[in-house]
Amino acid sequence: MTRLIVAAAQMGPVARHEPRSAAVARMVALMRAAHARGARLVVFPELALTSFFPRWILEGDALEAWFEGPLPGPEARPLFETAAALGVGFVLGYAERTADGRHFNSALLVGADGQVIGRYRKVHLPGHDAPQPGRAFQHLEKRYFLPGDLGFPVFPAFGARLGMLICNDRRWPEAWRCLGLQGAELVCLGYNTPLDHTGHAEIDSLSAFHNHLSMQAGAYQNALWVVAAAKCGREEGSDMLGQSAIIAPSGQIVAMAAGLDDEVICAEIDLGMGRRYRETIFDLARHREPGAYRLIVERKGAGDPLPLSPAARGA
Amino acid sequence: MTRLIVAAAQMGPVARHEPRSAAVARMVALMRAAHARGARLVVFPELALTSFFPRWILEGDALEAWFEGPLPGPEARPLFETAAALGVGFVLGYAERTADGRHFNSALLVGADGQVIGRYRKVHLPGHDAPQPGRAFQHLEKRYFLPGDLGFPVFPAFGARLGMLICNDRRWPEAWRCLGLQGAELVCLGYNTPLDHTGHAEIDSLSAFHNHLSMQAGAYQNALWVVAAAKCGREEGSDMLGQSAIIAPSGQIVAMAAGLDDEVICAEIDLGMGRRYRETIFDLARHREPGAYRLIVERKGAGDPLPLSPAARGA
Repeated sequence: MTRLIVAAAQMGPVARHEPRSAAVARMVALMRAAHARGARLVVFPELALTSFFPRWILEGDALEAWFEGPLPGPEARPLFETAAALGVGFVLGYAERTADGRHFNSALLVGADGQVIGRYRKVHLPGHDAPQPGRAFQHLEKRYFLPGDLGFPVFPAFGARLGMLICNDRRWPEAWRCLGLQGAELVCLGYNTPLDHTGHAEIDSLSAFHNHLSMQAGAYQNALWVVAAAKCGREEGSDMLGQSAIIAPSGQIVAMAAGLDDEVICAEIDLGMGRRYRETIFDLARHREPGAYRLIVERKGAGDPLPLSPAARGA
Repeated sequence: MTRLIVAAAQMGPVARHEPRSAAVARMVALMRAAHARGARLVVFPELALTSFFPRWILEGDALEAWFEGPLPGPEARPLFETAAALGVGFVLGYAERTADGRHFNSALLVGADGQVIGRYRKVHLPGHDAPQPGRAFQHLEKRYFLPGDLGFPVFPAFGARLGMLICNDRRWPEAWRCLGLQGAELVCLGYNTPLDHTGHAEIDSLSAFHNHLSMQAGAYQNALWVVAAAKCGREEGSDMLGQSAIIAPSGQIVAMAAGLDDEVICAEIDLGMGRRYRETIFDLARHREPGAYRLIVERKGAGDPLPLSPAARGA
């Protein structure tokens, strides 16, 4: 039985002109607070180093300025150095510019020695690739990022099989299942969720419910732990969801942030807890029927119902 | 905008020696009560005509006696006749014996004229194919039934694209997605969930939570309505979960049974409600990335993590 104290480091707003160094200083303080509570792994939000820039229409150098080259650069270095000094690993969401100039919404997994273990690139980009008229804030992730090209990698780290997801990925059961099918025991997830994210009040008013529902279902149906950290509060006039959470393989929320600013939540988790689920109701090898699931890879969007066999027609 | 009043007809226990005719008489009464509240479609539980026989070790004729040949036979006929007389359709869970002697855990969709529209056969069979020592009740669905061979059919019925799931299917996001990818707007689901279903108290004590979590996630992530009916209460000494529910495409529970006996719950549903979700956050054609999901059909059970690309290793 491997027990591990984990932390979600929720962050309040990062202003448009706040330098990376200021955000990093806040993150270092959060990491120290988590360490003081025994945490060995700290999860930071999606795009943690800056304001959530996909809300603005940006081009050329003005867009490029939001992206990071190889990490740690000089501004993020204190975070990596603090990790190594404290012996605390972390997951960091950031806007990645590759050596060949491509852009991804990415997360880096860093070990307790401050060295990079692995990377994930967000697969499910929400929003639009063209500005939407009449909206107070845009959501241009499809314009600014490419869909992740790394699949759903799972890393041996912190005594666990560890995967990462980013924000909108959490709504897609396919993402969780691809991790579950690789035996993931722990998923680290950062998010920025503007409270006007669909532009329809009847949906957006349920953002907090949908956030937890998606993560609790992903945790339960794949028998894994989730550590999820929000960037939240009123950022440049845009209200964003908090409620960072640590969720058990049972789907139960075992820790939750109560505020809308910088806040650490911790839990001591038993990485073996999912085993009972994987041996019974979610013994995937006994219960799944992949032959019946082909539509999941054969179709992208919804289409017409498949032709009905005579037995399905009631014969 | 198509509005429809739907009902879930929860049923309390059906005793081992209770004849089909007695269960059918209860179902007729439930159907009349639903009709009096304006319902045009009534969903009955899984294996509604009998006691939940997979809890017992049965063989030969003693097993065969629990299965139905072509419906309606003489005992179920009053249900079909009442449907036609009232102009109410229904979904009925039953143990199906095919003409060539195969056994399925099935559901029949019957129109408001009392004629069969379609059939579904449960894909995800829980439990075991051999008796488990030391358990007060067995769960031998894998022994008594074949996995459904009809996929996840979707029918044009009641002004909707209508699909069916049965009990354990609801825990598997693949099942919901296969319906969602065919544009399903309404899923009818019956269940029998013994409160000792895994045999581990730390899991079983969360049965009510897991029941709703799975269905709410399936509804939300596929933007469809769910009408779910339990057979519940203490049946032959086995306690079974109630909490029949009608769930909106938002994932919200809009009606729920409060008791553990025969009970009708109704809701007037707007079949168009899911459209807003399908046009925004769950526009599957814009947001899904099937190229990243291949593991879902290529693996049945969990295996080792896939090899990591250099970029996933942080290079």
